[in-house]
Amino acid sequence: MIIQLQQGIPAELKENILKQVQEIGYKANEVVTQQAHYLVAIGKKEFDIRQIGQLPGVADIHRVSEEYKLISRRWRVEPTRIDLGDGVMVGEGNFSIMAGPCSIEGEEQVERVVAHLVENNVKIMRGGVFKPRSSPYAFRGLGIDGLKMFHRICRENGIKIITEVMQVSQIEEMVDYVDVFQVGARNSQNFNLLDALGEAQKPVLLKRGISGTLEELLQAAEYIFSNGNEKIMLCERGIRGYEKAYRNILDLNAVPVLKEKTHLPVIVDPSHGIGLRDYVASMALASVMAGADGVIYETHYTPEKAFSDGQQTLNFQESERLIKRMRQAYELRESF
Amino acid sequence: MIIQLQQGIPAELKENILKQVQEIGYKANEVVTQQAHYLVAIGKKEFDIRQIGQLPGVADIHRVSEEYKLISRRWRVEPTRIDLGDGVMVGEGNFSIMAGPCSIEGEEQVERVVAHLVENNVKIMRGGVFKPRSSPYAFRGLGIDGLKMFHRICRENGIKIITEVMQVSQIEEMVDYVDVFQVGARNSQNFNLLDALGEAQKPVLLKRGISGTLEELLQAAEYIFSNGNEKIMLCERGIRGYEKAYRNILDLNAVPVLKEKTHLPVIVDPSHGIGLRDYVASMALASVMAGADGVIYETHYTPEKAFSDGQQTLNFQESERLIKRMRQAYELRESF
Amino acid sequence: MIIQLQQGIPAELKENILKQVQEIGYKANEVVTQQAHYLVAIGKKEFDIRQIGQLPGVADIHRVSEEYKLISRRWRVEPTRIDLGDGVMVGEGNFSIMAGPCSIEGEEQVERVVAHLVENNVKIMRGGVFKPRSSPYAFRGLGIDGLKMFHRICRENGIKIITEVMQVSQIEEMVDYVDVFQVGARNSQNFNLLDALGEAQKPVLLKRGISGTLEELLQAAEYIFSNGNEKIMLCERGIRGYEKAYRNILDLNAVPVLKEKTHLPVIVDPSHGIGLRDYVASMALASVMAGADGVIYETHYTPEKAFSDGQQTLNFQESERLIKRMRQAYELRESF
Amino acid sequence: MIIQLQQGIPAELKENILKQVQEIGYKANEVVTQQAHYLVAIGKKEFDIRQIGQLPGVADIHRVSEEYKLISRRWRVEPTRIDLGDGVMVGEGNFSIMAGPCSIEGEEQVERVVAHLVENNVKIMRGGVFKPRSSPYAFRGLGIDGLKMFHRICRENGIKIITEVMQVSQIEEMVDYVDVFQVGARNSQNFNLLDALGEAQKPVLLKRGISGTLEELLQAAEYIFSNGNEKIMLCERGIRGYEKAYRNILDLNAVPVLKEKTHLPVIVDPSHGIGLRDYVASMALASVMAGADGVIYETHYTPEKAFSDGQQTLNFQESERLIKRMRQAYELRESF
Repeated sequence: MIIQLQQGIPAELKENILKQVQEIGYKANEVVTQQAHYLVAIGKKEFDIRQIGQLPGVADIHRVSEEYKLISRRWRVEPTRIDLGDGVMVGEGNFSIMAGPCSIEGEEQVERVVAHLVENNVKIMRGGVFKPRSSPYAFRGLGIDGLKMFHRICRENGIKIITEVMQVSQIEEMVDYVDVFQVGARNSQNFNLLDALGEAQKPVLLKRGISGTLEELLQAAEYIFSNGNEKIMLCERGIRGYEKAYRNILDLNAVPVLKEKTHLPVIVDPSHGIGLRDYVASMALASVMAGADGVIYETHYTPEKAFSDGQQTLNFQESERLIKRMRQAYELRESF
Repeated sequence: MIIQLQQGIPAELKENILKQVQEIGYKANEVVTQQAHYLVAIGKKEFDIRQIGQLPGVADIHRVSEEYKLISRRWRVEPTRIDLGDGVMVGEGNFSIMAGPCSIEGEEQVERVVAHLVENNVKIMRGGVFKPRSSPYAFRGLGIDGLKMFHRICRENGIKIITEVMQVSQIEEMVDYVDVFQVGARNSQNFNLLDALGEAQKPVLLKRGISGTLEELLQAAEYIFSNGNEKIMLCERGIRGYEKAYRNILDLNAVPVLKEKTHLPVIVDPSHGIGLRDYVASMALASVMAGADGVIYETHYTPEKAFSDGQQTLNFQESERLIKRMRQAYELRESF
Repeated sequence: MIIQLQQGIPAELKENILKQVQEIGYKANEVVTQQAHYLVAIGKKEFDIRQIGQLPGVADIHRVSEEYKLISRRWRVEPTRIDLGDGVMVGEGNFSIMAGPCSIEGEEQVERVVAHLVENNVKIMRGGVFKPRSSPYAFRGLGIDGLKMFHRICRENGIKIITEVMQVSQIEEMVDYVDVFQVGARNSQNFNLLDALGEAQKPVLLKRGISGTLEELLQAAEYIFSNGNEKIMLCERGIRGYEKAYRNILDLNAVPVLKEKTHLPVIVDPSHGIGLRDYVASMALASVMAGADGVIYETHYTPEKAFSDGQQTLNFQESERLIKRMRQAYELRESF
Repeated sequence: MIIQLQQGIPAELKENILKQVQEIGYKANEVVTQQAHYLVAIGKKEFDIRQIGQLPGVADIHRVSEEYKLISRRWRVEPTRIDLGDGVMVGEGNFSIMAGPCSIEGEEQVERVVAHLVENNVKIMRGGVFKPRSSPYAFRGLGIDGLKMFHRICRENGIKIITEVMQVSQIEEMVDYVDVFQVGARNSQNFNLLDALGEAQKPVLLKRGISGTLEELLQAAEYIFSNGNEKIMLCERGIRGYEKAYRNILDLNAVPVLKEKTHLPVIVDPSHGIGLRDYVASMALASVMAGADGVIYETHYTPEKAFSDGQQTLNFQESERLIKRMRQAYELRESF
């Protein structure tokens, strides 16, 4: 049960509501986000919801039977739109393109990618500075100094930054240089990280686990929201399977299903989803038609020389063609 | 190695080629299809291909390193187009829509579906008369009499029939009433059935196994081709996975990858691929954008009352809307 | 609902029972096996089971809520034991070892394997004469003549034969030369084959599908039983998964779970289950401890030279050591 | 390439070796563990290994082609044994039983479990105080105070503690109260946590990921070792699959394969591996026969009332019977 409290509710009214909730036998979790003040009440007893709904200080009340509550579309029908500033919006009514290299490698690289994005009117650049690597001996990214450089060049060109955060202690040093924190597939159930990102309040793009269920993804998003942050995007990036012909199985079924279960925007990553450069564009276009709110993909001026993931990275010519086609496909979808 | 022989090659020339192939240490399989006469030579020794290529009676020769040969696009670059008669073509340059109920239930049902198809200019109707069922106690379809009725009504209305064949002994009784034989996911490696369908020469739509690899699907198609039948379509219909939110994982990655590996048309079945009516249209549209040559889906005038698969079946209104949108999406794709 | 009829029930009593069953709204399937005469009644209505149970001619009656009925342990608590003749029993109280090459290759090979089995007091030999192969150009086995030779040598030495049947039309030619028909993983839902094996009445070993569920395996067994054949063994042979370090995932969880769900014997195939010779013995021993009624594995006097599956085949020394250890492990398990 | 340096190597000799390694074109990672001093050199050039091997200060040198190096059995053939103090050893020559509840719930519970372990001569108790939960609203464990209580009671009774650590910041507060840190399946690729546990030097039990490959598990262990900690155990705990009849697929194939690839001990968790109480004992016994160095399972005096995982938890009677049987099975295995 979600109880939305009136803005600026007096302490004694809140205490009274809490008391009533406990008397019914429910446990109440207080959630204060950027936008509102909620009580999420967990319990199984049957009772008349109007008992609580009519209490002074209650703005709205809903039953939600799913394990996830605040992110459920049964409660909030209106899709969430996330404002990244300067008119860059993610969600309903926008198709968000996020592109860039797997790893941030240096100034020249960032400048050339930024120029490519500016030229094609793309507003969000991806690029990793903290890289999760299977081997301890592999390149782990340029770190915080790389992020500062990345940020400087993007700011000068009106580009927003999405980049991966790997642990709680990085949040504080990264927060001023990031527009969207990305949580990678390997950390999709790193609950302490999710808690901390809830408190950090910056927008978060949460990737589905390596073989995560939709239920797990939605509950992971609930961690972030219930810690105070409503600005969450979900990301389908392919799941692990037996097929050896590609890196992952891009599970586009997830797109329309997530869109019905939650009010949060859904982004697709076709680069990781198929892992082979020649097919990324087909899967990006399919994602648009499946109903995605945006696409995140890898591009580099010389994919062959990229520090990582070169085999799934588009060159600028391929990227430009894809951007145009995705926009046409999105336009067609919106006309339906 | 594929050796295409000249049409009407004299016996002694063929014998000579066979002898030379054996001398190199290769084993030759002779393949006569509706369209041509081939030797598929299997072996691993290195030799100068021109040795064979210059022999009298050889029209063309190619090395193909994959396990599958005749269906490989490395050998035949030109996409295969299959003529179902009366101007109904499948493959390159066409977008084929195949729609109809899971099971053929009776005359009224067939007539109403046919009317729906005619109205929307759809030329191919699906419908099962032999049904593979997990339980021996479940409805197994109307059988051959149902097929005859199905055929009569379709013929009167210019509609082609695709229906599932489950075993070798059914081929003979079905062949005159069928335009495309469908091989279901559970029979995708029923090699005796594939052999026999190669001999039958009617077009075949071959579904990917329940958790079949692309390699297995392609080799299964090679069975049909190497027994004399070039008229094969492949079908992605979802694979089995851990996710419980839908029936299967529709693996659209398979579409662009198959299109590069083989010259055969690729059809997608979004009804089985997601298994939930509300999302079938999104996945069908995504399939178009991923590059499919056609879509096969389930429709019924009252899905709730369908004998089987009602929960993934569109009603006629949904079907009509989808048909229009798929055609628009296909038109956009062709404009790229 | 399973209604066991009295042996030699007069026709009019049976008709009366059928009529009563239909009046309740159930559909009755008549099943006559080697051992008994049943009606399997399918329906959902609530009614007092004693209504039917007290009818003249009814020997016993049980409700079974699973989709599978006759093979359920809820109905028949006593484990099924299958008599292969000459005192060779499979099931409860026996640990059955079935060993031999992947493919039957020739007389010398069969003689040497038979000698190895005789020496180690193993009574059942495996060996394929009809081989399902992914590629149409691969060796497909010695066929029926190979089977006759295989049978002759085994008979002379008191060895029982288990070998794969791939299609309905093979049953008749094979039936006199086979002690157990094996249904391979790719045919585990070839329902026509299962129907026909039900009628054939010879013992059947039914392998789990490439990625078959236990539910599917049990229903496949129900096909055989409901067509008249109670002599069925189930076989866990590994399922398909994402792990590349071995050929399949041997799912030993299936063993204790199947043993609780059904009265049929459960055999494990560790050779296909892991696919790597060095580890087959460990997995065979683990299978014993998990509760298997037997093990089927591949052995050959020179695995390196075997026509197929050499990389998962034990040599005779390894096989002998394994046989001894499995018997010790079985003895320990029985002492628990 | 692994270069083991002589103990107490003078700085200038080490610098010289590093210089030579760099000149060959390799990147050297210096690793100092509880036991030795290594350089792990990463590169692809061909060169004569004796060039480095003969340098003063080099104790030993090995090429290791796998991505993981220090944990590879190609380098260190001798199995690793881990001393938990007071004569409690894990690895080769021991069969380690680790048992206890899913969650630590309170003093009475800990005391009763400890008494059960003491009575059965089991030396290691499991029990979570920081619990990873899918839902943010679920019970997350008693935390550090629970751990202190758990530790006090265990110390008084000579029992070692294994418990899960979820994030870097917990290590410091936990380290004095823990004998083995457990890394859960969801954190198996939380690389920052692995790095920090490498520095912490306490023994670590590393669980395979929800759908982790063996390669990923081994590389995760390499993270810990290369940060200075050689005391690592690997744990197979079931992987995610399509089968709905049990919680996970216990992949016992992993046991013999891991034992060959690495010198680290391998433990099996049958409780999570099958997730159903009635079958845990069968799978535990199978694990022994597959070659495991130990088993970790859940037990509670009233499983029905356990705070979490009750459906896969043994009661004390079942636990006692299992302990005896596992010891007999281990004895048999050792006799082979």
